[in-house]
Amino acid sequence: MPEVYAARRDRLRDRCSAGGSAAALVTRPANVRYLAGAAPQGAVLLVGTGEDVLLCAGPPDDELIDGRPDESLRVQVLPLPGGDPAVAGADLAAAQSAESLAVEEHHLTVARHRALTSVAPRLRLLDLGGAVEQLRLVKDEDEISLLRIGAEIVDQALSELLESILVGRTERHLALELERRLIDHGADGPAFSTSVGTGPNSGRPGHRPTDRRVEEGDFLSVCLGATYRGYRCEIGRTFVIGTSPADWQIELYDLVFAAQRAGRQALAPGVACRDVDRAARQILDSAGYGSGLAPGTGHGVGLEIDEDPQLTPAAMGKLDACVPVTVEPGVHLPGRGGVRIDDTLVVRPEADGGPELLTITTKELLAL
Amino acid sequence: MPEVYAARRDRLRDRCSAGGSAAALVTRPANVRYLAGAAPQGAVLLVGTGEDVLLCAGPPDDELIDGRPDESLRVQVLPLPGGDPAVAGADLAAAQSAESLAVEEHHLTVARHRALTSVAPRLRLLDLGGAVEQLRLVKDEDEISLLRIGAEIVDQALSELLESILVGRTERHLALELERRLIDHGADGPAFSTSVGTGPNSGRPGHRPTDRRVEEGDFLSVCLGATYRGYRCEIGRTFVIGTSPADWQIELYDLVFAAQRAGRQALAPGVACRDVDRAARQILDSAGYGSGLAPGTGHGVGLEIDEDPQLTPAAMGKLDACVPVTVEPGVHLPGRGGVRIDDTLVVRPEADGGPELLTITTKELLAL
Repeated sequence: MPEVYAARRDRLRDRCSAGGSAAALVTRPANVRYLAGAAPQGAVLLVGTGEDVLLCAGPPDDELIDGRPDESLRVQVLPLPGGDPAVAGADLAAAQSAESLAVEEHHLTVARHRALTSVAPRLRLLDLGGAVEQLRLVKDEDEISLLRIGAEIVDQALSELLESILVGRTERHLALELERRLIDHGADGPAFSTSVGTGPNSGRPGHRPTDRRVEEGDFLSVCLGATYRGYRCEIGRTFVIGTSPADWQIELYDLVFAAQRAGRQALAPGVACRDVDRAARQILDSAGYGSGLAPGTGHGVGLEIDEDPQLTPAAMGKLDACVPVTVEPGVHLPGRGGVRIDDTLVVRPEADGGPELLTITTKELLAL
Repeated sequence: MPEVYAARRDRLRDRCSAGGSAAALVTRPANVRYLAGAAPQGAVLLVGTGEDVLLCAGPPDDELIDGRPDESLRVQVLPLPGGDPAVAGADLAAAQSAESLAVEEHHLTVARHRALTSVAPRLRLLDLGGAVEQLRLVKDEDEISLLRIGAEIVDQALSELLESILVGRTERHLALELERRLIDHGADGPAFSTSVGTGPNSGRPGHRPTDRRVEEGDFLSVCLGATYRGYRCEIGRTFVIGTSPADWQIELYDLVFAAQRAGRQALAPGVACRDVDRAARQILDSAGYGSGLAPGTGHGVGLEIDEDPQLTPAAMGKLDACVPVTVEPGVHLPGRGGVRIDDTLVVRPEADGGPELLTITTKELLAL
């Protein structure tokens, strides 16, 4: 689908000229990939007045798992190893007689910015800001299909884990096994480091697996993600180990479940991001858990696992249709453990059936 | 060993004042960890005229696998989520009446640099350059001990793999199994993505594992690394599958082995980095493989898997004692495969027995 990439670059070109710059130098890898179809290590993309050029530090690999560069794009490999493709890009923009070049100031370091200025002193460097990130917000149906496949993979990996014996195994081993299963089912790899928390570690956001073993009576919380052709999605579930959950476990689970459902149900085109956060947060808040909560209850996903929009109390902006987001509230009680429930969904209008749930593993409290 | 961290910060302070700046703001995670004993996500370190302060975006985790902050250090957690600790650090430096602040321009983005300027307009921002990276070059014996343990772990993981049946298994599965074994033997995790290449993929530097299965007659090349308490080392070996290697395989293996040995033997305090590279490279070069070689034949290791010194034709500088480096020449013949042999060693003076080999797995050509 080379025309997709060319169309994306044309949209960026329009934004640039509206902002007063003739050309843009894209350095952030996920942005390069979005516009070029591939992001070989260190490669940068010049979207200019002439031909668009992907500048690479070395020969782009034949068998790149990360995709192939769009064929409508010129690929230029730096002749000398160790050179900075961004510097070569500024040089090329100057050679194309561009007067100004927009760069990603939120990604480019001060030292590289200086090197660009020094190689092309007449080129005025402007700030591209998050223009490409903005373009990436709303996904097309092909992108959503890739996320959907990734979600099937995480659902499958998780369901297989639940069929195995868990008591006595360590968090680290469960995390590794989940990652192996992701690969077995066709993922490029995990979308982020798999988090498995047992007992007092359960429900902690971003908990890094330890050597603690699963015990009877534990909460077990799992958060994993798959990358499929570059697109990343995630799922989080909490289970209880043993036949009969304690009362506090049932209560806490029901509460987090209600918060997560409220967040999911709030997803609709035109809804403010902060209102989705509030829908979930106020349920936990009014139960007295307000102070220990994570700063957000969800975020966008796509070529990166954590991208815009942010579902936080201070977030600006509204949701659009075809924006995939996570909804992942949780409560962690220090020393006791906690619950986290996390889905990836796509915002859809009511007429299309409302939010599309990608991660369909059950959210009933399973006793394993 | 809190005094170690305090001593490192004092060395940095000396460099700063020699360079005319009163304080330094360290943002690069490996540098923060080197000076503070821990690098919680997003944390930055202010090494100033007053107390040194580790500024964190959130509460530093109790059970941080990445180490605990040095106790002689003040830890300050930002009150508001979403704030930038670097901005808070500049604010604090200004409050400490520092007139200038050295920042890591090779790590700080243009946007963050601008935010620092705007919060503390009277503070003159200077460039710290690679001052901390320079301090990190020569390791103390405690750091070398951690690398030695990491090397034992990779040796063990590799030797276990070699005892299993390999034919019919995919590159991806072998890579995952190696990573699981690293964890089994106590690694924090892999030091980088494990590379396993079979047949035509063998010997490719940085090859990402595919679904290709190991076949009789293949070269099988493996490159893996372990992180142990933050320190990263690596090993690379090439094997042949089946009872009798082909003549071209034996010849190519012997050649790369000779190049790698020459590189290892060149390691000594006072030797120019480029001379180590040349020692290995010229053997491959004179056999006619000069044009397709990787840009370097080795690099430093430590808190990062690829740090200074670089062993490349254009490298400046000389080796010192107690600098750990890799020596990893290789040849890849497109369509046929190749050989790569990679060790982690510590530069030691002749009087101490010469270079210390950390990765001791045999480099004979094993037929598996």
